[in-house]
Amino acid sequence: MMARGKTYIVRVPATTANIGSGFDTLGMSLGLYNVVQFVPDENVKLEDTMIDAEGEGVDQITTGLDNMIIKAMDVTASKAGRTLPGGSMYLINRIPFARGLGSSSAALASGVFLANLLMGEPFNRKELLDITAEMEGHPDNAAPAILGGFCMALIENGNVVAERIDIPSQWKAVVAIPDFELHTEKARAVLPASYVRSDVVHNIGAVSFLMAAFMYNKPEYLKFGLDDHVHVPYRLGLIPGSEEVIRSSVKAGAYGATISGSGPTIIAFSPSDKAHLVGESMVSTFKHHGITSSYIVLDFDQSGISAV
Amino acid sequence: MMARGKTYIVRVPATTANIGSGFDTLGMSLGLYNVVQFVPDENVKLEDTMIDAEGEGVDQITTGLDNMIIKAMDVTASKAGRTLPGGSMYLINRIPFARGLGSSSAALASGVFLANLLMGEPFNRKELLDITAEMEGHPDNAAPAILGGFCMALIENGNVVAERIDIPSQWKAVVAIPDFELHTEKARAVLPASYVRSDVVHNIGAVSFLMAAFMYNKPEYLKFGLDDHVHVPYRLGLIPGSEEVIRSSVKAGAYGATISGSGPTIIAFSPSDKAHLVGESMVSTFKHHGITSSYIVLDFDQSGISAV
Repeated sequence: MMARGKTYIVRVPATTANIGSGFDTLGMSLGLYNVVQFVPDENVKLEDTMIDAEGEGVDQITTGLDNMIIKAMDVTASKAGRTLPGGSMYLINRIPFARGLGSSSAALASGVFLANLLMGEPFNRKELLDITAEMEGHPDNAAPAILGGFCMALIENGNVVAERIDIPSQWKAVVAIPDFELHTEKARAVLPASYVRSDVVHNIGAVSFLMAAFMYNKPEYLKFGLDDHVHVPYRLGLIPGSEEVIRSSVKAGAYGATISGSGPTIIAFSPSDKAHLVGESMVSTFKHHGITSSYIVLDFDQSGISAV
Repeated sequence: MMARGKTYIVRVPATTANIGSGFDTLGMSLGLYNVVQFVPDENVKLEDTMIDAEGEGVDQITTGLDNMIIKAMDVTASKAGRTLPGGSMYLINRIPFARGLGSSSAALASGVFLANLLMGEPFNRKELLDITAEMEGHPDNAAPAILGGFCMALIENGNVVAERIDIPSQWKAVVAIPDFELHTEKARAVLPASYVRSDVVHNIGAVSFLMAAFMYNKPEYLKFGLDDHVHVPYRLGLIPGSEEVIRSSVKAGAYGATISGSGPTIIAFSPSDKAHLVGESMVSTFKHHGITSSYIVLDFDQSGISAV
């Protein structure tokens, strides 16, 4: 009997991008994780990897190079001038698809990270971020997925420049997840091509207070930092009841709330003792507008993707 | 012989607003000070105060309620339901007029602060900022003039919300001051009415790195933070040679440089040991473009306006 290969396990966090005024720049890492288990087998080609899964969206999981994890493993191996064997993969999928919680970054990051592990770690964490962001096309989910915490990121000459801030540990994220998908392309199509100067100035001020809220643990600044004029007002119309959901979360005790990524999930920032009240009020407000949803109370993740 | 009144002395810093990507929001306090000395005389009306001065722009100083300091004293007294006597005032003017170094905020702040002193301090510092910003119409110079440091500020329902960050003490400001005035109205007239989305996203990213540069003492982030797409590119044309001056400052060792306020002063952020080289290169580059200028190496001011 042939010895079974060693098992590799990777845990990757959900992420929330934009965070109100930080459109296409800021992201945070959430304590909701996908787990990827992989057992390599030298006799199997990478694209022939057997994939099995449990959890969210299992019926949507593709195989071969159409699978984002496999594709990311392949790209990462190529960057190192290597090829990787396939094997068997088991996915524990907790991050729902196309809800604004960074499922595609999580998939790409886990493939990149897993490939790096299999090759004996030729790349450092920063290089893993470069590869992930290049595949994703933007770094705002990729940076927190890999680095954890509250991240700002931009791309300079093809390289990601990213910085992270610890998130105050007493803050909770309450995510209210509607039971419909909203694809980023659709959410991007409703944005205007240009903005008047007062909106630009507004967001420059808002983003500076958003940063200060995290840096100085001043939740009272979140109301300024989440008050976006660049994408949120245009996207609320794609998510029935979302404006009222945001309002109800604050009424229930949240520091503030906004669209997670490009939606449809609404994320509230809340003190611990109000978190469940906030979640319940968000779900019941969505219901009032004919939308079925569920909420989860999450810690923020401070350390990003890791081997388990 | 009548006893002469007690002498009140107020010291107020120059400020630099915008700081590249932080248009109309961010400002910093500089170690260049105007000093206002005032000796009240109960027999003199406020608007009849005798004003004498030395230093910058002495020939432009007005009297009575046309003088911004007197006007600010009068407004501040009214807010407290009081009237103030006049007296004799002596100004040591080191902040040049209309160069982008916050001379008008300095004048207003010193009048507000002086009036408060004369009345036995009915207002706290935050209220002094509210009054100053209300008179100025915007808080980006007023906040650092009063609070010191690196400030972000916005106005919510007529009240200023401001936060400050200490500026890394080893950083120096090198200001190259051309010998011509540039009024804010003119510098504002060249700005576009609207901005494409990519420029908006660019500045959101830039401002977050600008904040991180100060928070984490990472001067290497200044190049991103100072890379503005909202006002700097449009204003460079009003200041002959300014683009080359900025470039020459970096070549001489500055971390980065940009227009101070709405110009025409160019401010470079520099390590201490390169500051004079930076200043000399800026002045010689201006000269090469037919502009006479002088430079000053300044510390940043951390504490804002004060009684001496």
